[in-house]
Amino acid sequence: MSGYRVAIVGATGAVGREFLKLIEERSFPVESLKLIASNRSAGQELECLGRSHRVEESGASSFDSVDIAFFSAGAARSRELAPHALKAGAIVVDNSSAFRMEPDVPLVIPEINPHAITDSSRLIANPNCTAIVLLMTIAPLRVCGRIRRIIVSTYQSASGGGAAMMQELESQTRAVLAGEGPVPRVVPHVYAFNLFSHNTPINEHGYNEEEWKVMQEARKILELPELPINVTCIRVPVMRAHSESITVEFEGDAPDLATVRAALSNAPGVRVVDDPRANHFPMPIEAAGQDDVLVGRIRRDLSHPSAICLFASGDQLRKGAALNAIQIAELMVQRNLLPLRARA
Amino acid sequence: MSGYRVAIVGATGAVGREFLKLIEERSFPVESLKLIASNRSAGQELECLGRSHRVEESGASSFDSVDIAFFSAGAARSRELAPHALKAGAIVVDNSSAFRMEPDVPLVIPEINPHAITDSSRLIANPNCTAIVLLMTIAPLRVCGRIRRIIVSTYQSASGGGAAMMQELESQTRAVLAGEGPVPRVVPHVYAFNLFSHNTPINEHGYNEEEWKVMQEARKILELPELPINVTCIRVPVMRAHSESITVEFEGDAPDLATVRAALSNAPGVRVVDDPRANHFPMPIEAAGQDDVLVGRIRRDLSHPSAICLFASGDQLRKGAALNAIQIAELMVQRNLLPLRARA
Repeated sequence: MSGYRVAIVGATGAVGREFLKLIEERSFPVESLKLIASNRSAGQELECLGRSHRVEESGASSFDSVDIAFFSAGAARSRELAPHALKAGAIVVDNSSAFRMEPDVPLVIPEINPHAITDSSRLIANPNCTAIVLLMTIAPLRVCGRIRRIIVSTYQSASGGGAAMMQELESQTRAVLAGEGPVPRVVPHVYAFNLFSHNTPINEHGYNEEEWKVMQEARKILELPELPINVTCIRVPVMRAHSESITVEFEGDAPDLATVRAALSNAPGVRVVDDPRANHFPMPIEAAGQDDVLVGRIRRDLSHPSAICLFASGDQLRKGAALNAIQIAELMVQRNLLPLRARA
Repeated sequence: MSGYRVAIVGATGAVGREFLKLIEERSFPVESLKLIASNRSAGQELECLGRSHRVEESGASSFDSVDIAFFSAGAARSRELAPHALKAGAIVVDNSSAFRMEPDVPLVIPEINPHAITDSSRLIANPNCTAIVLLMTIAPLRVCGRIRRIIVSTYQSASGGGAAMMQELESQTRAVLAGEGPVPRVVPHVYAFNLFSHNTPINEHGYNEEEWKVMQEARKILELPELPINVTCIRVPVMRAHSESITVEFEGDAPDLATVRAALSNAPGVRVVDDPRANHFPMPIEAAGQDDVLVGRIRRDLSHPSAICLFASGDQLRKGAALNAIQIAELMVQRNLLPLRARA
């Protein structure tokens, strides 16, 4: 027994495929791999660890011999299937929003709040991708002072909407360049050479679901339940990796920028990209496929003595989703919370 | 004599061509039209007012029989040629940054500060396009309370870099979709399906030239020389029309949203696009080619009791450039500051 019996639910999606890459790249200890997807995708063959795996449709006994299940098939599927996986004895790392805000479910970014996972944790939630990019940037600054307020405007890529939205951006763009009218199918608006407010329902406060998730999850992960935070989520015609324009206010005067830069440079999972002379700052194209969140445009907010400004780009499919989930599993392995169970 | 002798400097550029359209659309009273451009573009023929006009290279006598000259050929050309035009007796409306911050040069958005033009004004500066979209959104809110601070993140289109940048976005995108590597020529970075911090020099405060212009020009136009304002300018792969995510803080409690909505609805040049149920908010594709600046996502900033948030899109070539300049000229006609001079 050289490793774990792993299941990936949503294996054929954009995040699912990233899981397969990361399992190989990071040599996650896998004994067996079970790929699960909707009946539409069942029967497909996906390569991983040097062999082909047939994608299975989920069923009542899908998780019978599974040690850890990574879920990335949307909140409804997680709500439906995660209880089966837990009942069958698997640890669940869920990439959906289904359980994130449940008080007894740890919502974890391993670099930030690994302590949220306790010895009895069996279901761990992976945060929203936009929240992860934001918090990877913000959390290291806590050594610089007490954070009082966060203001964020996002530049979110097609990958956040999965493989279908990436295809939509591509096909619409081809149509426009061919002189044809783009036909929105997956998104409600023209996407080619356009941008739009994140297409999730708007609540009574005027915030869309994505913005609300980021606000709630940031408070939970930073363990600052009253943290004032204001998020505007915008979808831009970028293929992969989310970017964010961030203003952070501290209690009292803003920390000096050398301290901020040092805190970010020392933070695992963060890479400072901040070269004013070359006009080189974080860009999604350089964040795509990378593990690190890129942070730059480090400067004082000249409109407030307590505030600084930053710009960040992070791969939404990697650190924003599959990488963070694998890191959660690795952390549990390190802490002996993912035992090699006796095999039947 | 039915109208004015008009010159357009930079006639072949993206803004120049918009001038020609607007002169027709708005029936600006033109007796004669002189199109001026660099020697590279001289000799081209452009259509306007039902006939073809040959583009001339600028010379010492270019402005001898000109009543009003619209400049849109960059700051260096304005610095070189505007003095000749003024000396020849023309009124100059300059779309470049050359003279905007000179204390005796009015910097004008007609809906906001028409009074800045005095009886003796002969050179009027047209503000930066990003500043215009911002201020069209912000200025109407002054009836709701005293503005204390503005925070802006922009989503700027290719049109802000002129026809060359629009072509670059298109050609790079074609290359990417053909599986080829995009080759940056006009911009320093990959532009197709990417975004980047505005590619102007960064000053000692860490702000690029575009951000600095918006901050300075906003203070001048609003006549609030100490107004705290913080701008982050980002170039996104959108063809035309700039968008902005805006947070406005007021003295005391934020105005109620009905008051904000009414103020924006009543503002000339602004159209409220704010339909949460349909998830329909300002988008550059709907602002492109339009005169109005679209404003929506009107909501409280839940991170601060004094603040509200907005999202705006405005056509950078129209209200952001050519339209505003024509409106300045129309205002001067109305106020008899653009006399029909005796012809030689």
